[in-house]
Amino acid sequence: MKKRIIVDMDEVMADVLGAMELWYKERYAAPIDYDRMKEGSLVKGFPEEVQPIMRQRLFEPGFFRHLPVMANSQEVLKAINDKYELFIVSAATEFPNSLKDKMEWLNDHFPFISWRQLVLCGDKKLVTGDVMIDDHGRNLVHFPGEKWLYHAPHNVLVTEYERVMDWEEIGKRLL
Amino acid sequence: MKKRIIVDMDEVMADVLGAMELWYKERYAAPIDYDRMKEGSLVKGFPEEVQPIMRQRLFEPGFFRHLPVMANSQEVLKAINDKYELFIVSAATEFPNSLKDKMEWLNDHFPFISWRQLVLCGDKKLVTGDVMIDDHGRNLVHFPGEKWLYHAPHNVLVTEYERVMDWEEIGKRLL
Repeated sequence: MKKRIIVDMDEVMADVLGAMELWYKERYAAPIDYDRMKEGSLVKGFPEEVQPIMRQRLFEPGFFRHLPVMANSQEVLKAINDKYELFIVSAATEFPNSLKDKMEWLNDHFPFISWRQLVLCGDKKLVTGDVMIDDHGRNLVHFPGEKWLYHAPHNVLVTEYERVMDWEEIGKRLL
Repeated sequence: MKKRIIVDMDEVMADVLGAMELWYKERYAAPIDYDRMKEGSLVKGFPEEVQPIMRQRLFEPGFFRHLPVMANSQEVLKAINDKYELFIVSAATEFPNSLKDKMEWLNDHFPFISWRQLVLCGDKKLVTGDVMIDDHGRNLVHFPGEKWLYHAPHNVLVTEYERVMDWEEIGKRLL
């Protein structure tokens, strides 16, 4: 039986921070404080007065539709999809407008992944599999299989999980 | 620890057949053939020339937004939500326009169920829990806990699972 690999979307397949940086730099001059993201949130790296606007953007139609794709994720996930049972599991129901955006984004950039392989949820605790790749400890904590923390500026202080740096490393380990 | 109860939406909480019947009866005179639904599909009960139209309606925005609620499901699920860990798991990603509709429908009729408790997916095989209530054997087959088949005209010939007839019976068993 094929091993089941569970992959997160935001900050693993989709470059949420990249989109935030682009949007911010077009509008503001103050530097981004990557050190403050260590407190557990990407938004914390931006000036206090901008943070509510950035949080609000997550609820707006279109935000998740136009995210850049993480480097090498397409080729590596294509090969993973051929070899394993792949599911994409995204904590998305907090943002009702993200649901269709996320499906369309996935169809555009990962056309080899079908609607059968997508899970949009609020809590990942009821998902099972052999390997979970996610940038949040709160999503990994209940998972019964191997827990791989995908490196991001907001999780650099998290030490409970095996860390993977990028898709090149994931490819080397799984393929 | 609270037992985890997994509940399906369509034909368990939401009366899909009821909505189909209403729509059909307003437009056509030929009787509905409930016997043909035994082949495994509600749509089969309608005349052949109407079936593609009914299937197409599932893909249109609004169909899942305006479904009637199954009798007694609100009161019983309110009490289940107080006593157990409840998740609503709906096979929805085949119908991208259903995603937001389903969330809004749930908020309207079951306001005590939060976005954290909702899972919209393509395949339920990666979901775990203690009891799953679903009208399709294909959703129950991989579930590791108790599998309860919610009675519907399309599943009357299915004998592999424990059958529950309605929410009154579910309430009696769980509360």
